[in-house]
Amino acid sequence: MQAITYHGARDMRLQDVPAPEVEAATDVVLRVTRSTICGSDLHLWHGAMPSPETGFTVGHELVGVVEEVGSAVHTLATGDRVFVSAVLGCGSCPRCRRGLYSACAVTTAGGTRSNVLGFGSAYPGGQAERIRVPFADVNVFAIPDDVTDEQALFLTDILPTAYMAADFARVEAGSHVVVFGCGPVGALAQRCAQVRGAARVIAIDPDEGRLALAGKRGCDVIHPEKENVLQRVLELTGGEGADSVIEAVGRAELVSQAALLLRAGGVISVAGVIVANVDLPWALFLLKNLTLRGGLVNPQQYAAQLLALIQGGRLDPSELITHRMPLAEGAAAYELFASHADGVLKVVLEP
Amino acid sequence: MQAITYHGARDMRLQDVPAPEVEAATDVVLRVTRSTICGSDLHLWHGAMPSPETGFTVGHELVGVVEEVGSAVHTLATGDRVFVSAVLGCGSCPRCRRGLYSACAVTTAGGTRSNVLGFGSAYPGGQAERIRVPFADVNVFAIPDDVTDEQALFLTDILPTAYMAADFARVEAGSHVVVFGCGPVGALAQRCAQVRGAARVIAIDPDEGRLALAGKRGCDVIHPEKENVLQRVLELTGGEGADSVIEAVGRAELVSQAALLLRAGGVISVAGVIVANVDLPWALFLLKNLTLRGGLVNPQQYAAQLLALIQGGRLDPSELITHRMPLAEGAAAYELFASHADGVLKVVLEP
Amino acid sequence: MQAITYHGARDMRLQDVPAPEVEAATDVVLRVTRSTICGSDLHLWHGAMPSPETGFTVGHELVGVVEEVGSAVHTLATGDRVFVSAVLGCGSCPRCRRGLYSACAVTTAGGTRSNVLGFGSAYPGGQAERIRVPFADVNVFAIPDDVTDEQALFLTDILPTAYMAADFARVEAGSHVVVFGCGPVGALAQRCAQVRGAARVIAIDPDEGRLALAGKRGCDVIHPEKENVLQRVLELTGGEGADSVIEAVGRAELVSQAALLLRAGGVISVAGVIVANVDLPWALFLLKNLTLRGGLVNPQQYAAQLLALIQGGRLDPSELITHRMPLAEGAAAYELFASHADGVLKVVLEP
Amino acid sequence: MQAITYHGARDMRLQDVPAPEVEAATDVVLRVTRSTICGSDLHLWHGAMPSPETGFTVGHELVGVVEEVGSAVHTLATGDRVFVSAVLGCGSCPRCRRGLYSACAVTTAGGTRSNVLGFGSAYPGGQAERIRVPFADVNVFAIPDDVTDEQALFLTDILPTAYMAADFARVEAGSHVVVFGCGPVGALAQRCAQVRGAARVIAIDPDEGRLALAGKRGCDVIHPEKENVLQRVLELTGGEGADSVIEAVGRAELVSQAALLLRAGGVISVAGVIVANVDLPWALFLLKNLTLRGGLVNPQQYAAQLLALIQGGRLDPSELITHRMPLAEGAAAYELFASHADGVLKVVLEP
Repeated sequence: MQAITYHGARDMRLQDVPAPEVEAATDVVLRVTRSTICGSDLHLWHGAMPSPETGFTVGHELVGVVEEVGSAVHTLATGDRVFVSAVLGCGSCPRCRRGLYSACAVTTAGGTRSNVLGFGSAYPGGQAERIRVPFADVNVFAIPDDVTDEQALFLTDILPTAYMAADFARVEAGSHVVVFGCGPVGALAQRCAQVRGAARVIAIDPDEGRLALAGKRGCDVIHPEKENVLQRVLELTGGEGADSVIEAVGRAELVSQAALLLRAGGVISVAGVIVANVDLPWALFLLKNLTLRGGLVNPQQYAAQLLALIQGGRLDPSELITHRMPLAEGAAAYELFASHADGVLKVVLEP
Repeated sequence: MQAITYHGARDMRLQDVPAPEVEAATDVVLRVTRSTICGSDLHLWHGAMPSPETGFTVGHELVGVVEEVGSAVHTLATGDRVFVSAVLGCGSCPRCRRGLYSACAVTTAGGTRSNVLGFGSAYPGGQAERIRVPFADVNVFAIPDDVTDEQALFLTDILPTAYMAADFARVEAGSHVVVFGCGPVGALAQRCAQVRGAARVIAIDPDEGRLALAGKRGCDVIHPEKENVLQRVLELTGGEGADSVIEAVGRAELVSQAALLLRAGGVISVAGVIVANVDLPWALFLLKNLTLRGGLVNPQQYAAQLLALIQGGRLDPSELITHRMPLAEGAAAYELFASHADGVLKVVLEP
Repeated sequence: MQAITYHGARDMRLQDVPAPEVEAATDVVLRVTRSTICGSDLHLWHGAMPSPETGFTVGHELVGVVEEVGSAVHTLATGDRVFVSAVLGCGSCPRCRRGLYSACAVTTAGGTRSNVLGFGSAYPGGQAERIRVPFADVNVFAIPDDVTDEQALFLTDILPTAYMAADFARVEAGSHVVVFGCGPVGALAQRCAQVRGAARVIAIDPDEGRLALAGKRGCDVIHPEKENVLQRVLELTGGEGADSVIEAVGRAELVSQAALLLRAGGVISVAGVIVANVDLPWALFLLKNLTLRGGLVNPQQYAAQLLALIQGGRLDPSELITHRMPLAEGAAAYELFASHADGVLKVVLEP
Repeated sequence: MQAITYHGARDMRLQDVPAPEVEAATDVVLRVTRSTICGSDLHLWHGAMPSPETGFTVGHELVGVVEEVGSAVHTLATGDRVFVSAVLGCGSCPRCRRGLYSACAVTTAGGTRSNVLGFGSAYPGGQAERIRVPFADVNVFAIPDDVTDEQALFLTDILPTAYMAADFARVEAGSHVVVFGCGPVGALAQRCAQVRGAARVIAIDPDEGRLALAGKRGCDVIHPEKENVLQRVLELTGGEGADSVIEAVGRAELVSQAALLLRAGGVISVAGVIVANVDLPWALFLLKNLTLRGGLVNPQQYAAQLLALIQGGRLDPSELITHRMPLAEGAAAYELFASHADGVLKVVLEP
């Protein structure tokens, strides 16, 4: 079958690879109907998160149709339209029982490998015609009839990540929320903050096109290079500061800046992937009683809730899709997505 | 000054009464600019909640302007536009410190009198030209410039009651919520459920006009005399039942019925004033792990959050105002409100 | 193999039944090393919860050693010392994903049968030499070396039930907690309230022997037929009433009485199995803002936490064991347990 | 009257100062019966937190008897035995309404001065014969008859600080908790973790005497210079890491180290006063989904709960008192306390 495979920085290739089969009784094999490229795939593409391995199939955002079902799987049947959790849990280890699938002791083999689809040869990804998913009763979810494939595609990673950001930020009805970043995760975090009842969402991004889209989403917007961010946030929050700040960019210095923008008792929630240490201005934590929270998403935790929001018409993440391309043009799709050109937010790949 | 006073069932009278003055250092006196009649005022009007006293000024939903300020009040100044909490707390007894102002040991004089404005001579009400409010730093709130008097009027009781209902019901993003009742409290409870992110709000009321308005508000609607309520709720919730049911009518049998409509783990939240005992089908509680919660509102707890929602354009409770009348026509206003005639939902009285 | 089987009211028999085998890839078969009789087994014994079936093996509290492991089970191996959850979940249906294993759509076959071990032929019980447990990765837990079999025996049902009661009651450091009942569940609920930091636990029971034991456990005690319960509770709580009341008897009228004993904002938590409707004094709920919660336990939810408490020496549920008998004398053990004679609290059966 | 006053680093003096009087209707004046020196007083003594002012009375931990009551105070009367919150709130500003008295806009005069007793001339402290306390209904609490002055003395600051640490750390029944520091705050944080049900409390301190006391308190102990902290914590927590780490020393590097010691999903709670920035290893936050929380205490929030624990015999903070001296020897008391000599943990000053 055809698959996009990783061969080093800026070297994604369309290759013929063996089609997967059910290996364990808890596996399913899916025919992939749509996949997409995530910001974290770009870490691979940029070589910033180099796996010692090469040649494996990439991609962790996908929907498909069940083709083969392991004998121990009881929630799925052949022909089911499904989405997967990009992060694979076993469902039964102490960490999965706490909902921390991302730290699953079993699928990470005791912390020695990634349990995210498409980040190594243990779990080949979904930018391919078919994919095997282990512990299917834990990691694969049926798509209801009134949810489209393109909507469900966002449930594998990016929408739960955005929702987690709003959840960690304790956004509630009446909250004033700052979101650093108007890329795909930031945009969805803004939507999630709104759906939880935020009275005001303040979006910050130096990209004027993305900032304008945030304005259309109903956010107040701040261009950080043209405006004084602290002064504007204070104006927009009655002088008190924001209830919470969501970091959806992945830059350590924004965490420090967030502490300035918060009211007493506020929360910083980090959804961006920050690779450096964070230099935390503790005096602000002390005087303002702040909370900082971050981590990897556990899509399984939010699946039912987010499906209900899509079904109820409260969220439509497919609004972010700007481009659709055949799987065979995957390498070009990576180029486009990395470039930020042509207003690209999300590229859907169709086998 | 002029005031509407209580003299028994269906006997509200406009009278001249002495104007109030600051009595304690923690009091303020307000010039009332608008008041309105609440469903609980009708209990008085119907004689169902008879006070042994008569002749006192009624009304607990009001906004005004500060005219006189006690020497110990530090959050308010003469000329401030304000709303009050209908329920008076002292702010410092053990119950107030828990946020349970409605059970305040001080203002209820140890449980021997009502601490709601306008339900006895201890705290004459606000359907009058002026009113004294005790413990003003606890019970009186400034109205921001971007909130109108008619919006703030709802913050004294009915909007916090509706929000409390959604809060007790643990409505969160993605919830399926049933609301019994499309009167003023039910309508606002539907709005509050939506603003907290409910994926679906299901409104039930036999009044077709009110039900149609709920439909316009974005609710799914059920006419309980024309449709099978249980069957419809199951259809609308994927066969699982609702996450929560809000009772906003005040009838004991709806609590029992609510237990039928809930999914496992669901919550019944009672905002209606029920005067009978509730016959609870415990088998459903046992099998489905249900929670039941109810009580009197503490408007102080929700004031900041609800103000922010109004300021952010997320809620506009003044949508419920159907009639405006001069204070002098108060008795007629009670007749109208009690009759449900002319599509009446909320009558504003202007001195 | 030998097993205790149900044949109608007061008719438990030791019989030879076929030994169970692994049927599904997710099953395990255990050699039972100890079992015990639960208060809910007495419902069967009294014929109060009659199954249409007879002849099935009873018993849902047990520990054992893994003898056979289905091919899809990944958390257990032959020879592991284990305890089981008395309530069987599939782990993957929407209800299990919420932690509501007791309402599992799969193991209850859509609500058509009990998913508790030993309450029908679908899931034969553990008062036997061997038992099959389905969905073993969900329902079976390894016992750490520093926890004895007799301690772990309580983790299958009765200790998590008691802990759930304290959890539903929101017992926290400093709470004043009333517990109706000093039987096995009540006694453990008192312990769980203490371990969560209750400042005062008030035990109520007409059985003087059990009440004296509660006193030794550090509880204040009230004999309901010799003392005025309300007056004593008010004295012991500074006149305010209790923060929460745990019902661990199973009598509807105690729920109503609980509402009287609570402070404003208090909680009633029902752990007892009540078969009648509950007549709820709503006026107290309204004036005091009360919460009522009850349901069946989900032992899976509390397993890790309770194991840690036993390992840390904070709880030792084996203190309740008063009698040990061979499995072959199971019928006599039921007689003894039902009689309350000889100070019996818990009878351990050893094959 | 006599008072200990601040005149620069290592220069505390006993002086005659004017006795305070009620200035506002919401004030009380107390006759101080006991005070004590807090670790944060040492910041003044060391000159590390220099106020531009000198000559003011120091001390924020005190109990006393009400001598004079402002006309607007309704919860206190002359002769009441009381403790105070060291942090002064107004009770009615938006921050106090959230429970964040430490950030009170009124008592800090908009953030321009400290609202802690004894840290400037605005609010002279309690190492004196008398003290004025503003907003007495908010900041002063009656001591029940069954609580001694020496127990209540700890409720002004240090016990609520320790409890806050356990609260921020989300310590619950069964938790494994690491506490850095066995000084007064660390010792009480260990007690608070135990009272909330921690299965295991692991105390770390290089002071062997203090560490031995922690062992007597029931903690597992680690000497950080003699043992490998990470290895020992993993051994004591079944290889998973701690559920939470409490920093009760005030050193930034311990926050970074805490991230290493935590299990996935763990929490760092900082009670120590850290004056440097914190260098946060974000990779650990990302991989393990960690939370960091810190801030100044709000003693008002925990007063009722901690009183109940003392009354119920669950906590006795007076166990920390090692020395008692007359107020007149206050300067010597500072020397002793700063020296860590003679096993000093807490010095009580008696006027």
